[in-house]
Amino acid sequence: MWDRLLTDCHVMTMVPRDGDPLGLVRNAAIGIVGERIVRVGRRTELAGTQAREVVPLGGAWVTPGLVDCHTHLVFGGTRAAEHAMRRAGATYEEIARAGGGIASTVAATAAASVPELVAQGRQRLHALARGGVTTVEIKSGYGSDPSSELRLLNVIRTLARSEPMRVVPTLLALHALPKGADRAAFVEQMIEELLPTAARLGLAAGVDAFCETIAFTREETERLFEAADRLGLPVRLHAEQLSNQQGAALAARYRALSADHLEHLDEAGARAMAEAGTVAVLLPGAFYALQESRKPPVDLLREHRVGIAVATDCNPGTSPMLLPQLAMNMGCTLFGLTPEEAIAGMTINAARALGLAQEIGTIEAGKAADLATWRIAEPAELGYWIGLAPERRIYRGVDQ
Amino acid sequence: MWDRLLTDCHVMTMVPRDGDPLGLVRNAAIGIVGERIVRVGRRTELAGTQAREVVPLGGAWVTPGLVDCHTHLVFGGTRAAEHAMRRAGATYEEIARAGGGIASTVAATAAASVPELVAQGRQRLHALARGGVTTVEIKSGYGSDPSSELRLLNVIRTLARSEPMRVVPTLLALHALPKGADRAAFVEQMIEELLPTAARLGLAAGVDAFCETIAFTREETERLFEAADRLGLPVRLHAEQLSNQQGAALAARYRALSADHLEHLDEAGARAMAEAGTVAVLLPGAFYALQESRKPPVDLLREHRVGIAVATDCNPGTSPMLLPQLAMNMGCTLFGLTPEEAIAGMTINAARALGLAQEIGTIEAGKAADLATWRIAEPAELGYWIGLAPERRIYRGVDQ
Ligand SMILES: [Zn+2]
Ligand SMILES: [Zn+2]
Repeated sequence: MWDRLLTDCHVMTMVPRDGDPLGLVRNAAIGIVGERIVRVGRRTELAGTQAREVVPLGGAWVTPGLVDCHTHLVFGGTRAAEHAMRRAGATYEEIARAGGGIASTVAATAAASVPELVAQGRQRLHALARGGVTTVEIKSGYGSDPSSELRLLNVIRTLARSEPMRVVPTLLALHALPKGADRAAFVEQMIEELLPTAARLGLAAGVDAFCETIAFTREETERLFEAADRLGLPVRLHAEQLSNQQGAALAARYRALSADHLEHLDEAGARAMAEAGTVAVLLPGAFYALQESRKPPVDLLREHRVGIAVATDCNPGTSPMLLPQLAMNMGCTLFGLTPEEAIAGMTINAARALGLAQEIGTIEAGKAADLATWRIAEPAELGYWIGLAPERRIYRGVDQ
Repeated sequence: MWDRLLTDCHVMTMVPRDGDPLGLVRNAAIGIVGERIVRVGRRTELAGTQAREVVPLGGAWVTPGLVDCHTHLVFGGTRAAEHAMRRAGATYEEIARAGGGIASTVAATAAASVPELVAQGRQRLHALARGGVTTVEIKSGYGSDPSSELRLLNVIRTLARSEPMRVVPTLLALHALPKGADRAAFVEQMIEELLPTAARLGLAAGVDAFCETIAFTREETERLFEAADRLGLPVRLHAEQLSNQQGAALAARYRALSADHLEHLDEAGARAMAEAGTVAVLLPGAFYALQESRKPPVDLLREHRVGIAVATDCNPGTSPMLLPQLAMNMGCTLFGLTPEEAIAGMTINAARALGLAQEIGTIEAGKAADLATWRIAEPAELGYWIGLAPERRIYRGVDQ
């Protein structure tokens, strides 16, 4: 006896089969027991099984619940004024002089109370949920010292415990050097003090850094990765966004789950990622909001068979994006992904980027019953519509 | 005794005042009687008035209900496959040879039943409604002869009568010449047969055409406009999208409510529009989906004080956009509009583009109580977030 039988639907299982990257099952049904999928198959094959509740989906398409594997959605303030200045032609320098940039978010985050940060984070999670997200990664990184970073990780924990959404917390330990801070002392403190504390308190499932000329060096990043390795925490990296720092290769050397952005990735980096199984997380929202011109080398990723994920990068400075379907659409429109790649990018490959591919990201027996249903006629519409919302979101077997 | 008092909110009245283009009233309240706004003012000034229902909005911002003044949202099929081909590098010719392009939508629309067209149109209207739209313009134009066009206008009428949304129907009489049709005979039939019939049946509030090298000439457009003029129907025009046909000046000569697209508008056209009060309707969704490079001359429009509206252009071929907030965001991000211009572009100026500025588009006594409320800290956030949805949508005084 199953708990639920979803029927009268078409399923993108995301388990590739016979040259079909989406693993489609048309005229399908899905059996659920408790929080888990127990069976996926043709409707006719599953029709004989008893279920407490039969849910006809009226011909909708079903995908795994979307996985947004790269966000910074806990922050105070917005950067709306800065965006308006940028449209009006202001330079970065003028924006920084007017108090903009990441430092302004660090200050606004410090000024916000914990309940305010929770309430605003919750509002953003709700927006993503309306878009079909069932798993979200949230990074810290807007703190300026260990205690403010721990405060943000605690906000993320509060959200994780109170929302019907799988929340994966990442300690973004090296994000931006606070103004006037001593560089060596800051790096030392974040690696030797913050990282072990966050690990001991179970506040981080992974560790991240921003390896860039305007942020932290390869050497600093490597020190962090070594420390994370010793603590058994997986790493990921903001790499090759504005320039090639060979961050992707470094990340691969530490078996990073993902390297993210990658506009300036080179062939050596792509090869290293492929060998390490490091997923390429593309963030078209930042490319769009900053009106960048250099795209990540998608062909290179395909050639070397690097897994491609897509995420909203929801953050106040470079990608104030609240709708996951737009990340898929922009992945297609701006970066030339196929619809199939975009869909895999917010399901199975995003699950891989979070180290959760055993649990989520496909529709198959044994996985969590995290699903989204879509009123579309064919899968490619998920990369086509600009602003499509799902009809239902099912988290751990339950409609939300 | 009022019916409703909306209170604890901040209001963008969109009635400019003392150099404030948004006509902001902070700590405001709005009195509603029946379907109309009767008073807008400071919360303290309105506190003494009795109301059957007091609705505290918890500090939300209130705008007029959004006005989407340019859509083609009644159609059969999608063009998702064509979009995927384009991303993969296919040329227009290859797409056309594979059965794509506007002809494929005309065929899919003809193949769809009226109930199917109504159901799909309704789904798109619901998406726009979730985005805060209370008034939408819908064009016909995917018919290939008078009877198929009248069928679409009747679908639009059905939607208008059944949805809690103000629907403005436009007869797009000259959109695409059907394959193999005799050009002169087609134009004659649409102008002499379709137009008077649609007018007599009250199926169109306005008349539109696509004046372009790949569509219809200035002379053909002018014949249509003359006929519309005789019938007392206002006109609008798809003008200067792919080339400069001096369509905007022609539209202005016929006191068109709007000229739309305008990527190739020149100074003479802008001047003529300003003198005629013709609104410039910008459609960044098409610019985005087609990855165009030539932007409409926003500075020229500002210089000549042409009113600027922004719309989704929701259509299957060039702008499958379902979220009005994205049109505002793309207006800012892609075309460099200020947030204030983008907001006016989907409220008062969109109302002007529909000839409805006496009824909707601002929050002031006497206007329809069509409103949207937003959980934001400052107005500029409406141009900043990518994919923000409103908290409430109020249509004719009632929460929807
Ligand atoms: Zn990031
Ligand atoms: Zn149009």
